[in-house]
Amino acid sequence: MEKNLNRPMAGLRPLTIVKVGGAVVEDEAQLTQLLRTFIAIEGPKILVHGGGRRATKMAAQLGIETRMVEGRRITDAQMLEVVTMVYGGLVNKHVVASLQALGADAIGLTGADGDIIRSVKRPPVSVGSVGMVDFGFVGDVKAVNGAKITHFIDAGLIPVIAPLTHDGMGHILNTNADTMASETAKAMADSFDVTLIFAFEKAGVLTNPDDDSSVIPHISHDDFLRLKADGTISGGMLPKVQNALNAIDAGVARVIITSAEAIDGKHGTVIEE
Amino acid sequence: MEKNLNRPMAGLRPLTIVKVGGAVVEDEAQLTQLLRTFIAIEGPKILVHGGGRRATKMAAQLGIETRMVEGRRITDAQMLEVVTMVYGGLVNKHVVASLQALGADAIGLTGADGDIIRSVKRPPVSVGSVGMVDFGFVGDVKAVNGAKITHFIDAGLIPVIAPLTHDGMGHILNTNADTMASETAKAMADSFDVTLIFAFEKAGVLTNPDDDSSVIPHISHDDFLRLKADGTISGGMLPKVQNALNAIDAGVARVIITSAEAIDGKHGTVIEE
Repeated sequence: MEKNLNRPMAGLRPLTIVKVGGAVVEDEAQLTQLLRTFIAIEGPKILVHGGGRRATKMAAQLGIETRMVEGRRITDAQMLEVVTMVYGGLVNKHVVASLQALGADAIGLTGADGDIIRSVKRPPVSVGSVGMVDFGFVGDVKAVNGAKITHFIDAGLIPVIAPLTHDGMGHILNTNADTMASETAKAMADSFDVTLIFAFEKAGVLTNPDDDSSVIPHISHDDFLRLKADGTISGGMLPKVQNALNAIDAGVARVIITSAEAIDGKHGTVIEE
Repeated sequence: MEKNLNRPMAGLRPLTIVKVGGAVVEDEAQLTQLLRTFIAIEGPKILVHGGGRRATKMAAQLGIETRMVEGRRITDAQMLEVVTMVYGGLVNKHVVASLQALGADAIGLTGADGDIIRSVKRPPVSVGSVGMVDFGFVGDVKAVNGAKITHFIDAGLIPVIAPLTHDGMGHILNTNADTMASETAKAMADSFDVTLIFAFEKAGVLTNPDDDSSVIPHISHDDFLRLKADGTISGGMLPKVQNALNAIDAGVARVIITSAEAIDGKHGTVIEE
């Protein structure tokens, strides 16, 4: 079983990778609170951020229409400029400067910086509800340079990764932040005991989507099959949990789905083998 | 004499720092040519870029008026967002991805990243022609972390520095790219034999501003006093050469003022002690 070959061994250093979405990053009070919790996490850590709402707002200010297909942004040449500016500049540098102010030695990175994450431009793909879709300048992650990221960590730096990659041919590509977090976690799993935390708007995977106290504390592969079959996990939560289990299969020790207020590793839904 | 204490000693590793302005960075053909010449420079190197024209254009697209006093931008809160996006995102990531495509392992940095360059917000200052001016969110460089930059260089990385710094209290500040290049050069002069190259629109310091073949090949302190007295160096060239000599006094081995097409260290005006 490949997943067993990749299973982290006892004695590996811990590494926590936190992915936080655009909504939190754009709210100053929420962001400060999140960053304080983040830097209190022991051991090496990486922050991966979004910024989609801010990009949509900036695009509107520039008279550029935002088009989404099943929650994913169509990135034409104009929109690529917007996301490069907003994710790589505005949001990333604000988070880095905020972490520095809290005494954390953050370094902002896109996939192009130090060639840490390469991607390939996504060809037009079939999307169930709409047929073939050309997402434009969107990158599908091809390679994560775990050794380079480890080098930054060993230098005492905290990588703050914006959802942008490059294709090695001079092009920046817009890349899904969840995917970047997952792929980075997988690449680091050979050398670290990796905890991957997805911060989102709910307290975790819930049995009742309207009740934040109904968090399912633990989901294994077998649990997932059962919860999927009985309809407890459905809709947008299905791909989230499936992606988490894929990361586990690739060697990530645990994935935690939790709220932005509770990224300390002690709350939310823990997904483990 | 302090300048003699700081004089680089024989045996120091070479380091070339190239500062290139916004006009070159925004012209794709010129940029590619410049980057090819840049990566051909032997030994460790750093690129510092501007982006003012692009920022002015983006501000206009967003309906934000650009105000300049004696060639320096007034940076209010809205303009700070524009320059953070354009310098730290659009321009910086484009240059980094372009260098990566040429096989150079570039890493984009602002002063906040890795805390490499701290600044203080400039208080309102008296400007000769206009009286007191509040430049807004503009940083005057306070400290350059040469050890951190050296660490990146030793990792085989090529720092690509955007003209943004931070104040250590969570604020990004707009910072003059020439100053960032000079201050970085000075900070590196203890450990490296530093060549600082300013690429601009002329072939060098000219005896006849309209004749690119009238480059003065070499200017020393004494030459400067003479050329200033007889009016050969005047206007905007005076502060450029004075700044170069200040860098020399602070230990930088040589400063070269040259055109963007000729940053190989073999052209332009060499300013040395």
